Amino acid sequence: MNFCSDNVTGISPEIIAALIAANSGAAMPYGNDEYTARLQTKFSQLFETEVTVFPVATGSAANAIALSVITPSYGAIYCHADSHINLDECGAPEFYTGGAKLVSLPGESGKITAADLDIKLKKAGAGVVHHVQPAAVSLTQATEAGTVYTPDEIRAISEVTRAHNLTLHMDGARFANAVVSLGCTPADITWRAGVDILSFGATKNGAMAAEAAVFFNRNLAETFHFRRKRGGHLFSKMRFLSAQLEAYITDNLWRQNAIHANKMAAKLADGLTSIPGVKLLHPVQANEIFAELPEAVIQGLYDEGFQFYRWEGEGSTIVRLVTAFNTKEEDVVAFIETAKRYSIPAYSPGMGKLTGV
Amino acid sequence: MNFCSDNVTGISPEIIAALIAANSGAAMPYGNDEYTARLQTKFSQLFETEVTVFPVATGSAANAIALSVITPSYGAIYCHADSHINLDECGAPEFYTGGAKLVSLPGESGKITAADLDIKLKKAGAGVVHHVQPAAVSLTQATEAGTVYTPDEIRAISEVTRAHNLTLHMDGARFANAVVSLGCTPADITWRAGVDILSFGATKNGAMAAEAAVFFNRNLAETFHFRRKRGGHLFSKMRFLSAQLEAYITDNLWRQNAIHANKMAAKLADGLTSIPGVKLLHPVQANEIFAELPEAVIQGLYDEGFQFYRWEGEGSTIVRLVTAFNTKEEDVVAFIETAKRYSIPAYSPGMGKLTGV
Amino acid sequence: MNFCSDNVTGISPEIIAALIAANSGAAMPYGNDEYTARLQTKFSQLFETEVTVFPVATGSAANAIALSVITPSYGAIYCHADSHINLDECGAPEFYTGGAKLVSLPGESGKITAADLDIKLKKAGAGVVHHVQPAAVSLTQATEAGTVYTPDEIRAISEVTRAHNLTLHMDGARFANAVVSLGCTPADITWRAGVDILSFGATKNGAMAAEAAVFFNRNLAETFHFRRKRGGHLFSKMRFLSAQLEAYITDNLWRQNAIHANKMAAKLADGLTSIPGVKLLHPVQANEIFAELPEAVIQGLYDEGFQFYRWEGEGSTIVRLVTAFNTKEEDVVAFIETAKRYSIPAYSPGMGKLTGV
Amino acid sequence: MNFCSDNVTGISPEIIAALIAANSGAAMPYGNDEYTARLQTKFSQLFETEVTVFPVATGSAANAIALSVITPSYGAIYCHADSHINLDECGAPEFYTGGAKLVSLPGESGKITAADLDIKLKKAGAGVVHHVQPAAVSLTQATEAGTVYTPDEIRAISEVTRAHNLTLHMDGARFANAVVSLGCTPADITWRAGVDILSFGATKNGAMAAEAAVFFNRNLAETFHFRRKRGGHLFSKMRFLSAQLEAYITDNLWRQNAIHANKMAAKLADGLTSIPGVKLLHPVQANEIFAELPEAVIQGLYDEGFQFYRWEGEGSTIVRLVTAFNTKEEDVVAFIETAKRYSIPAYSPGMGKLTGV
Repeated sequence: MNFCSDNVTGISPEIIAALIAANSGAAMPYGNDEYTARLQTKFSQLFETEVTVFPVATGSAANAIALSVITPSYGAIYCHADSHINLDECGAPEFYTGGAKLVSLPGESGKITAADLDIKLKKAGAGVVHHVQPAAVSLTQATEAGTVYTPDEIRAISEVTRAHNLTLHMDGARFANAVVSLGCTPADITWRAGVDILSFGATKNGAMAAEAAVFFNRNLAETFHFRRKRGGHLFSKMRFLSAQLEAYITDNLWRQNAIHANKMAAKLADGLTSIPGVKLLHPVQANEIFAELPEAVIQGLYDEGFQFYRWEGEGSTIVRLVTAFNTKEEDVVAFIETAKRYSIPAYSPGMGKLTGV
Repeated sequence: MNFCSDNVTGISPEIIAALIAANSGAAMPYGNDEYTARLQTKFSQLFETEVTVFPVATGSAANAIALSVITPSYGAIYCHADSHINLDECGAPEFYTGGAKLVSLPGESGKITAADLDIKLKKAGAGVVHHVQPAAVSLTQATEAGTVYTPDEIRAISEVTRAHNLTLHMDGARFANAVVSLGCTPADITWRAGVDILSFGATKNGAMAAEAAVFFNRNLAETFHFRRKRGGHLFSKMRFLSAQLEAYITDNLWRQNAIHANKMAAKLADGLTSIPGVKLLHPVQANEIFAELPEAVIQGLYDEGFQFYRWEGEGSTIVRLVTAFNTKEEDVVAFIETAKRYSIPAYSPGMGKLTGV
Repeated sequence: MNFCSDNVTGISPEIIAALIAANSGAAMPYGNDEYTARLQTKFSQLFETEVTVFPVATGSAANAIALSVITPSYGAIYCHADSHINLDECGAPEFYTGGAKLVSLPGESGKITAADLDIKLKKAGAGVVHHVQPAAVSLTQATEAGTVYTPDEIRAISEVTRAHNLTLHMDGARFANAVVSLGCTPADITWRAGVDILSFGATKNGAMAAEAAVFFNRNLAETFHFRRKRGGHLFSKMRFLSAQLEAYITDNLWRQNAIHANKMAAKLADGLTSIPGVKLLHPVQANEIFAELPEAVIQGLYDEGFQFYRWEGEGSTIVRLVTAFNTKEEDVVAFIETAKRYSIPAYSPGMGKLTGV
Repeated sequence: MNFCSDNVTGISPEIIAALIAANSGAAMPYGNDEYTARLQTKFSQLFETEVTVFPVATGSAANAIALSVITPSYGAIYCHADSHINLDECGAPEFYTGGAKLVSLPGESGKITAADLDIKLKKAGAGVVHHVQPAAVSLTQATEAGTVYTPDEIRAISEVTRAHNLTLHMDGARFANAVVSLGCTPADITWRAGVDILSFGATKNGAMAAEAAVFFNRNLAETFHFRRKRGGHLFSKMRFLSAQLEAYITDNLWRQNAIHANKMAAKLADGLTSIPGVKLLHPVQANEIFAELPEAVIQGLYDEGFQFYRWEGEGSTIVRLVTAFNTKEEDVVAFIETAKRYSIPAYSPGMGKLTGV
């Protein structure tokens, strides 16, 4: 009953099976294998356009290396203030770019707007030697607030991005959750909406450790190869990264896993809203829920063995709940029932235990 | 029949089994799991001293992050001219250190000597502002020439290293092969001989993708944590890295695998020396053979489906042959027999095929 | 009649004289000269404590190299959102630190507060691997808004800084203006108030191109030497940097120059406040004035040959006016009179010209 | 009587005069001044082609920033093993490039050859992900051994450079000495011979602190502006850098100064060769002499107050002697006579002093 994150999960059975299957015979190293070769084709099919794909093992690597391809050391990357690249990668983008600056934008429910971006870029001092030079925009899809950008929102942002001669990156650590939430195709919220490079996440949605940097603008891909190697991210036994990704995009596994995770989040959100004193902070559009819970409810849930994070540090009553491809419906039900019980003022744990709940 | 590298191999059955076993239930991410916790104890036992261990997925990551811990941006790392960190990591150490310089030393059969190092360091200009400042020495064990440093050789180098106030790193991509070759303990060629940090390789010897940065000088370990994260090398589902390493050092798997690989290399080397025109370039002390072969033999082996690299580019008759934990003895036998056949001047491939070989 | 900046000025006569005087005979290079040697003593006298001083030619160099000494690549530097290091150095601190992050704080009139800093640092995630690690605080004195921190304010900030184990840097590009504004000693607002390193500016206040990185915490100074060289900032003919700094701190030149500049700013501010429609944005405590002017006044001043910047881009009616060591009182008077004329609604440039103004 | 280096000298009178002249009135900062504007034209005239010029204060800055423009972080710069960028800049090129590698070539008397370069580049692994990617070649003219590359030698190197798709940089710290030595035009040994970027030195030949990065391939110049700022090398009072450079290239000052320095070196070399036991290590083609001197001669010269460096550390009898624009002929004569005296075995310092020498 761990709702801490989608990265507390293990590996999808299909992906474990793919790893086992890939472990047969010798394969040339560093991506010169058939699994990696096939990825190019299969990702191009998935995205309905010719793409260049680079497997890496972590989302931070995919993001930071991709951003380093499009941002000079004196450049600036525009992103949401709460974005993972800004807050949660210990400065990986700054490291890989050689010291570029992340310029953060505010925005409700984890989303920046095209209008805010345009204003910020107009004041950025492009061409003025004293200022870091605007180079890239990075969106997270689904966002760090569990919401999703619509294709129209992305297109509007990409138009501003392009009008200022910047490049558009998408951090898709939870890309699958966004796609199924929107009921669109992968293409709809990427290249068709103006995205140049996607960090296509698989780890949180069932892989062991596998992400893909997907270049829609293939001209940009050239230096990724060297930067990945230089970052220590070129696997010698690459087939085992590629096999994960291949299984992930085969037979709609990525989609099925995300559908389940989102469904569990919706059910959980639905249940929570019926509980007095509970307030959702953002629309629940993917597999993350941010909610304010009565302290008694939080304590009660912890006491009963549910795991999740207080989101703003010790003492905060804002919590994050994350569902995943393998979240059990019964755990969601148990979570809500437990929360309900502890939300009744007169109720105390002792009572609960007496009644055998 | 692939002798290109030990990284063309798959995964040891025991390690695949460990991955499957680890895929059960939820586990806290980023190393806050029981597998990773256990590694600290088990590595300390293996090395007979308290160590701090950081799992990463690639050898380049282990090397470059470790070196960045001990080398300031204005520092110099002393290593063999042919070392992997100097030639084969696309500048990963320079990247992670923020631009340190690798100062290379010559040395027979892939080994630097304490005496050469001492001379070089005395001329290095320590304290002189115009010069990069000597910071670290890095040895590869087993070396890139398939040889091994003896404990005494390492101790002599560590004494020079320490006399100049530098730190000693060991790139142990093929550490297991060195240990079993020397018939010593892991401690004998590391901390007991003065090594401060070891990149302990598992990938080439049976893991999928797992290496450990092992700090004997635990005071140095402090910043590795942040540098690993910043490099994109902190796995969210870390248990799957740790489980590989745990299986690798359990029940002597690492040792058994290396014993086999070395034995196959010895057999192969032995067979080769009986062939006219073949010359071994270095003593074969681990699982790599560097040899000069007659061109007809190389061509013949290629024609018969054996895979291996010409080591000095197109047209070179120097080849590298690498054996591994799963090299089949029959393949070694076949290699030698094939080589023998093609070494007979009158023999031609057509003949070979006619006689059904 | 150029009020654009204090860097549009030339060189104080005393400093030119010192350059000429220093141009006699040979002197050993790279700081091994008598001028540079004397600086150590003279700065220690000026600051009433033993300091280590490094001359450099630009403020960005002093700031960025100093910050790189105290901030690891995975570190964070806390500063005002409008600070020069954050906005106007094209990422020099990020470059010299190898990609540290500047975390900006808001604050009225260019000043951060100890309370805000404390709150921010408590939430910074010190020790948490996902976040850049708090390392340094940087104050600008006088601030970018033309205000000054009092000794008490600095002390309060330094206490918070120290409580969180950070180091305190002061960007003193206009340090002299702050000292004379406060009527204190250089020591009062630096080491006595808890500052560890000061970028001591001279260029804006009469030098040609000379700044000094002054280490009060001398233990920190060790690596500056190498970082300066590596940044290309170690002058071979260092005596000409040191001679500027020596002349600057001799016979109170630095103080006299700043007194004049501040006096001119006060006079200008005083005159402006008597003009209808003019609004000062910040208290005028040093040699910079930020004011909102009627557009007609701005245009009128431009037409009459006064030079100054619109501060927030094209069309902005916020202007910055900077006085300097050599600002002529008559120019200040002329500025005010011209501004007054154009502030009369009925007045038009044509009229002005007819009456011979 | 200081022959340590040409950077122990002061400033040419013409350049001091230019500094004084430039110190009149206000000038817009950061290069937006008339002095800097004029440089573009005057350097274009000097080089007989349209160039883009960036003034900086040090040669390390000119070299490192220029190299960072043409070398990606995963790139390699090919240079002589003894080159200043390789040995004497504390890793400035590595720093500015974000960790590129300097690959050194041997070569007699400080010069690399086109043939050696070609061999090295063919083996460099261009396009192979494991290796740093060849990006730039850097020549020093005059070399660190006091020799000069002929136009033909440079052209041959530039042809190899271009054939491998690299860019050619020239470190011209002693460019003037090379030009007058060869009796050619500045164009002959730069763009006409295939050089893309020149670090045009003035400091060693009479400026206070001024060098120019000269882009013949003007397409490459674009990012220098931001990189210079980011490195802290954009002077606010830029006119004082530009005024030095302007005076330096006006009325052939640069040429006259170099002619004198070279003449003094030739005279010194000539005198030395007549002394028993003295051996010149390299042809003396510019203003540097490398010679082996009897220990008694070295000691004697030191005793009599001559200053110069032992070139290979304590105890070495190899010395470097450098002449400059203001070396006095009488000092050269005195040097030779003193050396001669001490080269006579029976001679002792006491004797010399008695006879009043």
